[in-house]
Amino acid sequence: MSNNLFDFGMIGLGVMGRNLLLNTADHGFSVIGFDKDEAKTAALEAAATEGTTVKGVPDLAHMVQQLQRPRKLMMLVPAGKPVDDVIESLLPLVEKGDVIIDGGNSHYTDTLRRVKYLRDKEIHFMGVGVSGGEQGARTGPSIMPGGDLEAYSHVKPLLEAIAAKVNGEPCVAYLGKEGAGHYVKMVHNGIEYAIMQLISESYTLLKHAGLNNDELHETFKKWNEGALQSFLVEITADIFLQKDDKTTARLLDVISDKAGSKGTGKWTSQDSMELPVAVSVIDSAVAMRTVSGYKEERIKAAALYNESGAAITVSTEEWIKQVHDALYFGTILSYAQGLAMLYQASRELAMDIPLPDAVSVWRGGCIIRSTLLETFTQAYKNSPDLSNILLDPGVAAIIKSAESNTRAVVAQAALSGVPAAALMSSLAYFDAYRSERMATNLIQAQRDYFGAHTYQRTDIPGTFHTEWNH
Amino acid sequence: MSNNLFDFGMIGLGVMGRNLLLNTADHGFSVIGFDKDEAKTAALEAAATEGTTVKGVPDLAHMVQQLQRPRKLMMLVPAGKPVDDVIESLLPLVEKGDVIIDGGNSHYTDTLRRVKYLRDKEIHFMGVGVSGGEQGARTGPSIMPGGDLEAYSHVKPLLEAIAAKVNGEPCVAYLGKEGAGHYVKMVHNGIEYAIMQLISESYTLLKHAGLNNDELHETFKKWNEGALQSFLVEITADIFLQKDDKTTARLLDVISDKAGSKGTGKWTSQDSMELPVAVSVIDSAVAMRTVSGYKEERIKAAALYNESGAAITVSTEEWIKQVHDALYFGTILSYAQGLAMLYQASRELAMDIPLPDAVSVWRGGCIIRSTLLETFTQAYKNSPDLSNILLDPGVAAIIKSAESNTRAVVAQAALSGVPAAALMSSLAYFDAYRSERMATNLIQAQRDYFGAHTYQRTDIPGTFHTEWNH
Repeated sequence: MSNNLFDFGMIGLGVMGRNLLLNTADHGFSVIGFDKDEAKTAALEAAATEGTTVKGVPDLAHMVQQLQRPRKLMMLVPAGKPVDDVIESLLPLVEKGDVIIDGGNSHYTDTLRRVKYLRDKEIHFMGVGVSGGEQGARTGPSIMPGGDLEAYSHVKPLLEAIAAKVNGEPCVAYLGKEGAGHYVKMVHNGIEYAIMQLISESYTLLKHAGLNNDELHETFKKWNEGALQSFLVEITADIFLQKDDKTTARLLDVISDKAGSKGTGKWTSQDSMELPVAVSVIDSAVAMRTVSGYKEERIKAAALYNESGAAITVSTEEWIKQVHDALYFGTILSYAQGLAMLYQASRELAMDIPLPDAVSVWRGGCIIRSTLLETFTQAYKNSPDLSNILLDPGVAAIIKSAESNTRAVVAQAALSGVPAAALMSSLAYFDAYRSERMATNLIQAQRDYFGAHTYQRTDIPGTFHTEWNH
Repeated sequence: MSNNLFDFGMIGLGVMGRNLLLNTADHGFSVIGFDKDEAKTAALEAAATEGTTVKGVPDLAHMVQQLQRPRKLMMLVPAGKPVDDVIESLLPLVEKGDVIIDGGNSHYTDTLRRVKYLRDKEIHFMGVGVSGGEQGARTGPSIMPGGDLEAYSHVKPLLEAIAAKVNGEPCVAYLGKEGAGHYVKMVHNGIEYAIMQLISESYTLLKHAGLNNDELHETFKKWNEGALQSFLVEITADIFLQKDDKTTARLLDVISDKAGSKGTGKWTSQDSMELPVAVSVIDSAVAMRTVSGYKEERIKAAALYNESGAAITVSTEEWIKQVHDALYFGTILSYAQGLAMLYQASRELAMDIPLPDAVSVWRGGCIIRSTLLETFTQAYKNSPDLSNILLDPGVAAIIKSAESNTRAVVAQAALSGVPAAALMSSLAYFDAYRSERMATNLIQAQRDYFGAHTYQRTDIPGTFHTEWNH
């Protein structure tokens, strides 16, 4: 630490801010954190690795004064007004050329607005997505920075040092202009929602065949050693084993089924419709979290519609194999929809997102990391401007290998009455996507019939309207 | 027409504005329409029924001066800025107590803003949904007014006169405060998207079994004589018969499958997520219209994924019956989701929407009119505060009668590779909704594992976090 000034500052010392700062210090940077809560500044210093330079202060001005110029400052505070409040309190303290990073889950339109607001004051503002949860922040998250390239050049060495590594490569790369970092992180979270929903459906489908928690653990553990290897499958395997400390049950069995959310999945679905791009698996995941909140209604509905569905017609061993393939299929479709959204958003919103880099960044540290991302990295190497990974021959080969079992699982779920919204959405999207001609010509006919909305023809260019015979 | 002043004015003489004005004149009101385009004012006058008082003028001030006070003015112009522009041009011309009606498809948040803006000037502003297409506007649409009750009292006799009638009752009722009229219309359109998508899926499913256009016509015609009786099924039957005037084909077969949209379906899905309420069948319909636009990608994907799926295993006669029931099931689920959205929105947004009246208004004139609405009217009579019509025993009986065939169709669609996104969404929603316990406890466990997001328990109140064993 030359001239006793710190390399990097953090605003907000919640678990994510603290862990990210400790991670930074472990890589040789001197760091200083601000939080009004002195218990948190003390906790930060207490948790520092011996020999690292970590300081916590309860005074923002005090912190900003102690940073090297250009100052490099990150905030990890709740999205929305708190971010604007921090910016306003920083403005009298920072100066031209300083870099302020929002490392939280801000909506990209807020980030865009802030980038412009601070650009006028010649302050660099970067929206940076950080994924990996508590543990990832401490030991190496996936980092998704967006903003101007000059600002990135100031923080690149630091972000590369603290990011997760895959084959020695840091899981961070410049992901595009202005709001791109938060946009990529939003879509990352949308994909995360979809895969979590698919795993929860696979869990019910296997439970329906009689698997107990130990068997479910074994199944997911084995899956995590193969094509499905991923952070989410790995932790799912762990979850089935966790014992409750209050009863004799497994913890999972006493956890309420009302699922919470922080809004990034919802944003992904809402923003996809603006482009528009179809992310129907993510939409299903968002909808199912909502239905999970209808607890009282579901209890009433369960009493009213108490039919039990058909039993599973294949052996348990075969069923496990089929569900594996369906989860694999659905997971690929989730990535495909999310990446197609980034492809389109990059163009529509002029963000210049390098998709191969986004996929590369996701390979380590983040919640949706999986071996599949190596496959997608390869696909983008072959064809960097791929509009949808389903069009890559390598991905197509995988999809085809999982397709018939996916069909079998969806059919069985329908007959058995097991809810499988995301799996069904992934198959329905796939079957529409691979249709040279969809049945939506009928929708155009209906629109022209009742609303004179006009239609196009398959054979003659132009726009047509018909006086339909009633 | 006492003192030579007109009863009602219309701004915008496109086909909807003209037809609605002619309809009004036919019911004994003297009407005046404004459009800058003199061809349109002339067309209005030329189309007037003999003996009615219909005038068209190309000067807005001229029109406003000739209206009885309090003035009753409707605009039918494109949503967005055009509505604001009309309001600004009206402001110097109207006076306290006048009623301005926006009869277009404005987003309810715009309507809310305008209501407040004009309330300060003591001008009544009403957002009024009008459904029924060209023909409905001319002969009797379904009308969904929202706003303040005093304003409604001024236009009630006129709206009741021009609305569609069912059993002698006009298809118009006061539907709630401020933006309620446009909100109800938006959800109406969302349901419309869902049912249109379901019909298009039924069309593909039947086509897959080899039905030709004549047979499809016969099938839908017969369906329209039974439980599925509805405007959309009726016009679908007509559509299959329509001949192309340029080739020897049926028109439907040469219509492009790229489906357009004007945004109200998208709004319904986006706004549902804000509440949040799950309208997954509508979401699917929105997504499929989007996929229909991926024409070039779909051609490539069709070449890559050219497997043909399993043949249908039941007789054609049985298949038609099964698809009938699936369409019936999906249609009920579409209404159920839309009405659940209105139920929630009415509370969250303090609109006081009388759901029994909304359903009653939809029985005639509008695009989603169907005999099913009589069933729902009955359900609300039995239980006016029903949060979801699926909880009504009468509706439950219908659902149960269609359930097993719906399961069979979804299973067959999955095995045959026929895209059926909305049908699958309706079944998946139903199966989640009737689950006393969903598998989303696993999602809560995952969220707590990687993000310390905490969870609730089934047995002990409070919020918990676990240090999960890795």
